[in-house]
Amino acid sequence: MNELQRKDLKYIWHPCSQMKDYETFDPIVIKRGEGVFLEDMNGKRYLDAVSSWWVNLFGHSNKRINEALYKQANKLEHVMLANFSHEPAIELAEKIVNVTPDGLNKIFFGDNGSSAVEIALKLSFQYHQQIGKNKKTKFVKISDAYHGETLGALSVCDVELYNKVFNPLLLDVIKAQGPDCYRCPYGLCRENCRAECFEKMEKTIEKQHEEISAIIIEPMVQGAAGMKIYSPEYLKKLRKLCDEYEINLIADEVAVGFGRTGKMFACENAGISPDIMCLSKGLTAGYMPLALTLMTDKIYNAFYDDYSKLKAFLHSHSYSGNALGCSIAVETLNIFKDENVVENNIIKSNLLREKVGNILDELPHVGEYRQLGMIGAIELVKNKETKEGFDWKSRVGYNIYKIALKKGVLLRPLGNVIYFMPPYVIDNKEMDLMVNTARDSILEFFNL
Amino acid sequence: MNELQRKDLKYIWHPCSQMKDYETFDPIVIKRGEGVFLEDMNGKRYLDAVSSWWVNLFGHSNKRINEALYKQANKLEHVMLANFSHEPAIELAEKIVNVTPDGLNKIFFGDNGSSAVEIALKLSFQYHQQIGKNKKTKFVKISDAYHGETLGALSVCDVELYNKVFNPLLLDVIKAQGPDCYRCPYGLCRENCRAECFEKMEKTIEKQHEEISAIIIEPMVQGAAGMKIYSPEYLKKLRKLCDEYEINLIADEVAVGFGRTGKMFACENAGISPDIMCLSKGLTAGYMPLALTLMTDKIYNAFYDDYSKLKAFLHSHSYSGNALGCSIAVETLNIFKDENVVENNIIKSNLLREKVGNILDELPHVGEYRQLGMIGAIELVKNKETKEGFDWKSRVGYNIYKIALKKGVLLRPLGNVIYFMPPYVIDNKEMDLMVNTARDSILEFFNL
Ligand SMILES: Cc1ncc(COP(=O)(O)O)c(C=O)c1O
Ligand SMILES: Cc1ncc(COP(=O)(O)O)c(C=O)c1O
Repeated sequence: MNELQRKDLKYIWHPCSQMKDYETFDPIVIKRGEGVFLEDMNGKRYLDAVSSWWVNLFGHSNKRINEALYKQANKLEHVMLANFSHEPAIELAEKIVNVTPDGLNKIFFGDNGSSAVEIALKLSFQYHQQIGKNKKTKFVKISDAYHGETLGALSVCDVELYNKVFNPLLLDVIKAQGPDCYRCPYGLCRENCRAECFEKMEKTIEKQHEEISAIIIEPMVQGAAGMKIYSPEYLKKLRKLCDEYEINLIADEVAVGFGRTGKMFACENAGISPDIMCLSKGLTAGYMPLALTLMTDKIYNAFYDDYSKLKAFLHSHSYSGNALGCSIAVETLNIFKDENVVENNIIKSNLLREKVGNILDELPHVGEYRQLGMIGAIELVKNKETKEGFDWKSRVGYNIYKIALKKGVLLRPLGNVIYFMPPYVIDNKEMDLMVNTARDSILEFFNL
Repeated sequence: MNELQRKDLKYIWHPCSQMKDYETFDPIVIKRGEGVFLEDMNGKRYLDAVSSWWVNLFGHSNKRINEALYKQANKLEHVMLANFSHEPAIELAEKIVNVTPDGLNKIFFGDNGSSAVEIALKLSFQYHQQIGKNKKTKFVKISDAYHGETLGALSVCDVELYNKVFNPLLLDVIKAQGPDCYRCPYGLCRENCRAECFEKMEKTIEKQHEEISAIIIEPMVQGAAGMKIYSPEYLKKLRKLCDEYEINLIADEVAVGFGRTGKMFACENAGISPDIMCLSKGLTAGYMPLALTLMTDKIYNAFYDDYSKLKAFLHSHSYSGNALGCSIAVETLNIFKDENVVENNIIKSNLLREKVGNILDELPHVGEYRQLGMIGAIELVKNKETKEGFDWKSRVGYNIYKIALKKGVLLRPLGNVIYFMPPYVIDNKEMDLMVNTARDSILEFFNL
């Protein structure tokens, strides 16, 4: 361990970590980034196959974004957004409303994915209070959901590892059984699915709709759950149900937005518009925290009244609408346009599917390979017949990740799911390195 | 209204605003910033007397910080912080531990003030679970407190305007009557106060300490409450009480940290160390969202164990430990050192006290002028004898703010408190402009 690593462990409590694990895992100190690669203090390079927790889109230290950022810093780094505004915020607002699904016409700024979700929940709650539906005070979450870890966001998560200890602090939310396509309880597979499992949601809502303010969902892919991909039919049915019972549909596109799923936004896969949408992560192409919560005019209008009526939506952060973040987000949207990113991603995602397809036969314990756009996930199981998973204590994914790191690929897993979610700038050779290293690491772990 | 302003109102829902107010208040679109000034599209300049919600320290578009930011962007903009690290995070961690009160040896990253508070609350809760004090599940807030607006942070706020509508969503917290020095219920004044009012807190704690996990407080100044300054004695007594009953003391220095109160951190005014401390805002000198939660080794150690014991603290944000934010924070601390900022602030704060002192006699309705370091607040009241405030509907502060804006000074009030919290780079002439414009605006409002 060098001096920097020693200092790191002396002072820093790393997220998503049992710090004792670092006794046998020195923190990797990154000096610089370039494209899909991260380079440590010793010059060793790592291909960032998970886009640093799904945020990076156009490579590390992207020249074009660096220039946009520097230019903005030299004009204006930040101004409070109450009564004030600035060009990057306005430009971003116009551009984002134009590319997001129809009907989402207003934007509210937040700092990160969690705050975007908190804003969505508070907004829906107050909306129903103000239109006289006072009984609509509850939120519905779906099994295995992840929406962030501030207490409001955590309340609509359903990941035992994150929730359990904090349960006494969380909101009383309604849980609906969501889709589980790999282990479909109806014995169906992706090809013949018509979202039969939606009946569970239907029953929950039919019974409790009078007290439900909003349903929150990660459209198309439940990320933290292990990149669980499900049918667009589910979203279509959900949209209808929400309309029928006057429930706000909140689409949390924090992880899947900005071209990840083959469309600019994941909701487009189902051709639906939510009432509220949360954006973050890719919004700044992986550069810095910034978030948006978008909503319909209908919701906005319920808050628009004379000051003395006290109907304003009060939620602010010191850095709401930060000019540096907005300027990066504007440049991100410019890159999408100038470089036909969504179209090119389709070509790249086909290439990824092909490459992974070629290695699957060599690999043991692959329960399923699933892919949507630029997200590909290998679920490793103990028993392919019964689909029984590995015991969490054996830390199969974690150990494969450690092997892959030695080989120069950053493949941080979700439990025993090894996934690919690379920056969009990944090229053919880099994709080979990523996929082949995943194969080699899995084989090495299983001693094959 | 110009095209940009029209677009702004078409798309952006501004924070802390009833949007209908904008029918008679065009959003001010800022083009560039320089030092204490913000310049709009028409070339009109505004002195930012509130440091854009208390974040800016060294002026807008600060050359030195811009260069540090650009340099970092060209090396590494971001890498996930789980198992990975980078020089700016490590350098920041070491520097911050060295300048903060004794005993705060570990840092955990967040994105904004609210998340720093959420982390503090979750940390304290889980800590007590893990040391076997399972009954310690509640938090204590103080009257008029503000700690941010995600649901966990909002739960420990006590500002009716923010809390009321969301009450059904908030945690069941214990409220203790806090200090109120201008309207001291004991009939004392700042000169002869020995924090007699602490007895209220004492009684609350004596009765309920077995179920209390943490007390959270804004040390020395309750910002959003209207810059309510109170005695360091209160903090000393609070520290003792927390020790006695094994309660975590959380100091929320989001607003008062980084030299605002005449010391580097507000807790130093009382010579105390909290168990947990929250930092944000000035951490990046007003550039972008970044936050830290610091804690003692004692707390850290209660989470350090074998992975399989499931004692890890799980709270992460996509952008935890963002390299751009860290590099700015490092440069901010460098500036503090190179330019003797804390010492110079004492000189400037004396100057501010003198200048405001000179205008006070001219002004009507001044209930109190209070100041601590670089925070000065004029509380306007209807009746100076009875200290009766103005009706909130008359919006006295808001109307004075609008007059001051026309005159080129941004003095966004807190209710009927007009306050000065300028960037530290403010010079003598600029301070005159700020103080005299406040005077003129107050006089104009009262038609004098
Ligand atoms: C779907 C989803 N929502 C919300 C979040 C929370 O965002 P953040 O980590 O920026 O708070 C995440 C982060 O991983 C996410 O995947
Ligand atoms: C004392 C205090 N804590 C927390 C916060 C919340 O910080 P943020 O707005 O960055 O979420 C603020 C913001 O004004 C604050 O003044």
